[in-house]
Amino acid sequence: PAARLAGIPPTVFAEMSALALRTGSVNLGQGFPDVDGPASVVAAAARAMEDGANQYAPGWGVPALREAVARHQQRHYGITLDPTTEVAVTTGATEAVAAAVLGLVDPGDEVVVLEPYYDSYTAMIQMAGGMRRPVTLRAPDFRLDVDELRAAVGPRTRYVLLNSPHNPTGTVLTRTELEAVAAVAVEHDLVVITDEVYEHLVFTGHEHVPISTLPGMAERTLTISSVGKSWSFTGWKVGWATGPAALVGALVSAKQWLTFTSGAPLQPAVAWALDEESDFPRLLAADLEGRRDLLCAGLARTGLDVRVPEGTYFAVTDTRALGWPDARSFCAALPERAGVVAIPMAFFYDDEDASRHLVRWTFCKRTEVLEDALARLAGAD
Amino acid sequence: PAARLAGIPPTVFAEMSALALRTGSVNLGQGFPDVDGPASVVAAAARAMEDGANQYAPGWGVPALREAVARHQQRHYGITLDPTTEVAVTTGATEAVAAAVLGLVDPGDEVVVLEPYYDSYTAMIQMAGGMRRPVTLRAPDFRLDVDELRAAVGPRTRYVLLNSPHNPTGTVLTRTELEAVAAVAVEHDLVVITDEVYEHLVFTGHEHVPISTLPGMAERTLTISSVGKSWSFTGWKVGWATGPAALVGALVSAKQWLTFTSGAPLQPAVAWALDEESDFPRLLAADLEGRRDLLCAGLARTGLDVRVPEGTYFAVTDTRALGWPDARSFCAALPERAGVVAIPMAFFYDDEDASRHLVRWTFCKRTEVLEDALARLAGAD
Ligand SMILES: CSCCC(=O)C(=O)O
Ligand SMILES: CSCCC(=O)C(=O)O
Repeated sequence: PAARLAGIPPTVFAEMSALALRTGSVNLGQGFPDVDGPASVVAAAARAMEDGANQYAPGWGVPALREAVARHQQRHYGITLDPTTEVAVTTGATEAVAAAVLGLVDPGDEVVVLEPYYDSYTAMIQMAGGMRRPVTLRAPDFRLDVDELRAAVGPRTRYVLLNSPHNPTGTVLTRTELEAVAAVAVEHDLVVITDEVYEHLVFTGHEHVPISTLPGMAERTLTISSVGKSWSFTGWKVGWATGPAALVGALVSAKQWLTFTSGAPLQPAVAWALDEESDFPRLLAADLEGRRDLLCAGLARTGLDVRVPEGTYFAVTDTRALGWPDARSFCAALPERAGVVAIPMAFFYDDEDASRHLVRWTFCKRTEVLEDALARLAGAD
Repeated sequence: PAARLAGIPPTVFAEMSALALRTGSVNLGQGFPDVDGPASVVAAAARAMEDGANQYAPGWGVPALREAVARHQQRHYGITLDPTTEVAVTTGATEAVAAAVLGLVDPGDEVVVLEPYYDSYTAMIQMAGGMRRPVTLRAPDFRLDVDELRAAVGPRTRYVLLNSPHNPTGTVLTRTELEAVAAVAVEHDLVVITDEVYEHLVFTGHEHVPISTLPGMAERTLTISSVGKSWSFTGWKVGWATGPAALVGALVSAKQWLTFTSGAPLQPAVAWALDEESDFPRLLAADLEGRRDLLCAGLARTGLDVRVPEGTYFAVTDTRALGWPDARSFCAALPERAGVVAIPMAFFYDDEDASRHLVRWTFCKRTEVLEDALARLAGAD
């Protein structure tokens, strides 16, 4: 392989799902639901295919979807966008991140990123020749340390790659925390690339604030989201990027060579989802909150220290209370001991001390599956 | 935008399709059919969605499709592949090219490419910091000049990025030409990345030979194809790469960060297409041959010098016989003069002298559309 890939392991999610399959384990590793989104959205895709939406979609995405994304941003956040220049459709949020990084980050540029990192962020920053500057979220509460944020910014820093609601910690950055990020971005003239795919999966008592809505931020924020998590169609890989025309345009400049376009028959169905199934994400979040509570209570009963997440699909536990100082060993033994797969948080951290004892579990599976996993864990030696 | 994108214009196909839309012209620019592929394939996709193929597909692609691709290579070319390590599914051939280049080409590496270039090749080589070394196919016959090929290879050359059947010239490299490429590749220990998306769209008297089937080539060839052109589903963006595990693995190492995966409900339908609609590409090629003849004869009647293509969707004309020394001006005036859009070949060449007078026309549109375009051209002032 080319040098730009040196030392980057295969994505942990593929590895963990393969492990679950191989060992017949309950997969609480990779975050994807086991119940699909609304049947009306599937029907809309079938209709689109029958109506002939089977040839290349425009590189920026089908107009109906770009308009639906603009309406979504207006409805939820009061953000006004020009769908022809400020919205682009991507092959999921993954492609949006890849194209944003390749379209914006020059070799040597520093990118401030929340640690633990979603694995594609660090891979893409390396592939672009950028340098990551972590701001570490630490157990047990995984809050943003504003002093650490300020210290991470240097003369070569040009970008912040943000992610809130945050995978894998389940932290939802508060307005105050986001204001601190915004202040740093404005002061140092940084562009913020923000991955908000869990924007609707936020639990009681917490609120998702798009950083682009803070003063001075609209003009320096590229916001990424997708249909996958909010409408339970992770396999469709339809995402979008919104923001100032110059930033969205830079993303498209790279994206056009990565895939050109994708999912022509799925894009109109996603437009349908955003407009006609606009309640779905709220109902999903409410339902997911019950499953969060089920999983967290069950994990606590097995003796793990649990951090109850504020949003996303994921809960984090500390394995030390259970006598496992090393979560890697804990996760490696888990398929054999209990028939369950979970992910050591060390995969997402550079900082070994901050992560050695931590495990991520997803609760985006059906109640019966979570109960099965918890029964298996309770029965483990 | 980042420096890696400096000087790269937006993809010509987006530009030309937008021009056609804006001017109400017949679009003989971008190559996509106006009749979809088999209804049974659409039905298979609808079934896959209803059966729940809506969450992440594996990063390497769904096993059923990888197996169908392996069977396809066996059936057509006698190539035996291990579907678990020698086949990967991509978001169309575009992503396969992007991931191959990012996964293999290091800064400073030289890549020998046939000129005229498909536009994503040069963009991706630049983005990877590679250097293109053209081997120019020249009008009127657009054959490979083996001396020029040999002269293009230097000490820093590591790859050949091949494309046959060749877009935009319509040349199908002969076995003899491919043997020359293979000899050079073996002699200089080059890896060949070969984009064969038009593999089935080859006309009477010509034959597609996968370069990987030539002696010594299987172990150094990464072959790319897709469902888009052969089964008339360009908008689905489902493609694949096949070859030695190390080359396919390097491609996946990059691809996992570009999109991770895509088209979960489309992949099983593409497997269906390859197995159950395996005759479709042959019938399409036969039908397309009639449309090729229609377009070529009509263009000749308007006074253009026409090169009858051997494969692909595209015919090339010389505009000088018609009194237009500059094909860019010819194409710029065409929407106004005739209500037709075609693409100046200069977009695909570095070599201005070799391309100034050339235009590319697609014949992948319905007979009525081609007749309409020809009537418009005949009536132009
Ligand atoms: C792109 S696969 C990963 C799914 C996911 O977001 C996660 O498990 O963190
Ligand atoms: C990816 S859009 C281009 C379609 C095509 O292959 C062409 O027109 O050459």
